[in-house]
Amino acid sequence: MDILITGGGGMIGRKLVERLARDGTLNGEPVTRVILQDVVEPQVPQDVPFTVQTRTTDLADAGEAEALVENRPQVIFHLAAIVSGEAETDFDKGYRVNMTGTWNLLEAIRAAGNVPRLVFTSSIAVYGAPFPEPIDDAFFHQPLTSYGAQKACGELLMADYTRKGFVDGIGIRLPTICIRPGKPNKAASGFFSGILREPLAGIEAVCPVDETVRHWVASPRAATGFLVHAAELDGETVGPRRNLTMPGLCVSIRDMLDSLRRVAGDTVADRVRFEPDPFIVKIVSGWPQNFEATRAPDLGFTADSDFDAIIRSHIEDELGGVIAD
Amino acid sequence: MDILITGGGGMIGRKLVERLARDGTLNGEPVTRVILQDVVEPQVPQDVPFTVQTRTTDLADAGEAEALVENRPQVIFHLAAIVSGEAETDFDKGYRVNMTGTWNLLEAIRAAGNVPRLVFTSSIAVYGAPFPEPIDDAFFHQPLTSYGAQKACGELLMADYTRKGFVDGIGIRLPTICIRPGKPNKAASGFFSGILREPLAGIEAVCPVDETVRHWVASPRAATGFLVHAAELDGETVGPRRNLTMPGLCVSIRDMLDSLRRVAGDTVADRVRFEPDPFIVKIVSGWPQNFEATRAPDLGFTADSDFDAIIRSHIEDELGGVIAD
Repeated sequence: MDILITGGGGMIGRKLVERLARDGTLNGEPVTRVILQDVVEPQVPQDVPFTVQTRTTDLADAGEAEALVENRPQVIFHLAAIVSGEAETDFDKGYRVNMTGTWNLLEAIRAAGNVPRLVFTSSIAVYGAPFPEPIDDAFFHQPLTSYGAQKACGELLMADYTRKGFVDGIGIRLPTICIRPGKPNKAASGFFSGILREPLAGIEAVCPVDETVRHWVASPRAATGFLVHAAELDGETVGPRRNLTMPGLCVSIRDMLDSLRRVAGDTVADRVRFEPDPFIVKIVSGWPQNFEATRAPDLGFTADSDFDAIIRSHIEDELGGVIAD
Repeated sequence: MDILITGGGGMIGRKLVERLARDGTLNGEPVTRVILQDVVEPQVPQDVPFTVQTRTTDLADAGEAEALVENRPQVIFHLAAIVSGEAETDFDKGYRVNMTGTWNLLEAIRAAGNVPRLVFTSSIAVYGAPFPEPIDDAFFHQPLTSYGAQKACGELLMADYTRKGFVDGIGIRLPTICIRPGKPNKAASGFFSGILREPLAGIEAVCPVDETVRHWVASPRAATGFLVHAAELDGETVGPRRNLTMPGLCVSIRDMLDSLRRVAGDTVADRVRFEPDPFIVKIVSGWPQNFEATRAPDLGFTADSDFDAIIRSHIEDELGGVIAD
């Protein structure tokens, strides 16, 4: 099986390739080749049981989408995107990559004619406040960011191209990934991972919001599971409504830190201090916090069991089982 | 005040110009010029108290949107669209006009820099079955036609460009226009007008669905009122959720024909016979029938008072008060 991963150089792409390497198969077929496309040179993983090719290109460039699907991959994971903050500050770049890039890919797939499974990573940013509590699967999309608007349009395009038989798409709205491995980044949501990742690595961390703030999260392991399950899902069972809110956990900062204390002990948990940042408090207050995602679990998508499990999977997958004490 | 009407050659455009000519003003300012753009040469109305210019062009052609907003009209009515049936059979044409055309217009407005009021005619085709009964303002958009997908994307783009301050947009989802004046057309919804228009003109008519079928309708007079009110509405009051389902009447075929009999008498009403058409029955069964549109009435949009009034306004506006008996 030939697989294409756009935006394959990012954290989710890397986790997905690791998972495919462990499984060796997708939907019962041996994985023979994976093409990783990204604007920055994707890392080629070592010791994988399939060919990995990289393409360091911009999906929105004329002809690039066509080149990517030239060999008619059977499964395409479309992860390439300009993230929320950058799409907000660079309006043209956000629309170019998130909107034109996605549309170009759909058009190229339509021209190739082989109707591959396309797994499109959308986002809970398609929702904009005020929200019902919780947000159910039939609540409307009123994004309050350009990123959210671009993802919502991508969902509509993908569903329509699927309805017309040009592609076999599944859109998955990912929760915020927590605990995100790697270095701290400047994303406004970064602290949801930072207040756990840094203490576990022996570093002090600052929480910029108060402990009652809730968020909708999934582990990298769960997110990778969503991608693989979306690639294997029977499209007939899904029907015409092709975009699904993934099951996550609704946890408060207090829940997270209680978990950290339970799993990693007092020394680790005491490395977090609270220092409210009004700028971040304001941004976070506009984000959705809780969902009643019923369709995705009905279709077999599985959330993390609880937040303790999320912390344990981070310790296993990223820290080799060792907590900095 | 300078006004641009894209798709100004159609029925709604003509009704809108007639209304502007009667009023002489829009939002308290004298109308000085109206530009009517359409792919077919728009009719220039006689005896109007402002300059009318026509442009027979394709909005989706490179440079055309820029040319249209060159003189920075203060109000733009964006009516140009490929209708539902044609967008379904000609996929490329539908996306070119309804999607690229709308996006080009938004980009041209952004480049012009004067932040005009843009009234965008969307459609209840953004909704796809199965529906709740009635459909409320927060129900999600799962279109089952390319036309619906294109309109839903147009709504998202317009709202995002508005949020960023590039345009001051209001999207209005029009009910089916009934009684649509003019000759019968091939639209699947055409009979909702035909079973009233033809008998009132002395012609027999066939109803292809049974009398229990319900639909969401507004008169041409109400639709014109929606457009003018959307042009005059205070954007601050509307807030960030810029797309509104217009108030209509939910009427059954039986309600319509009872009205016809009350208003126009037995001779006219007896000109309708029932001849079920399975093809049309199937199409119509997928359409939304009833809405609980609360935001638009709260913002001052006014529906027709009842179906008798819709028939009476047709007799006044289109038949000079004379029913063919």
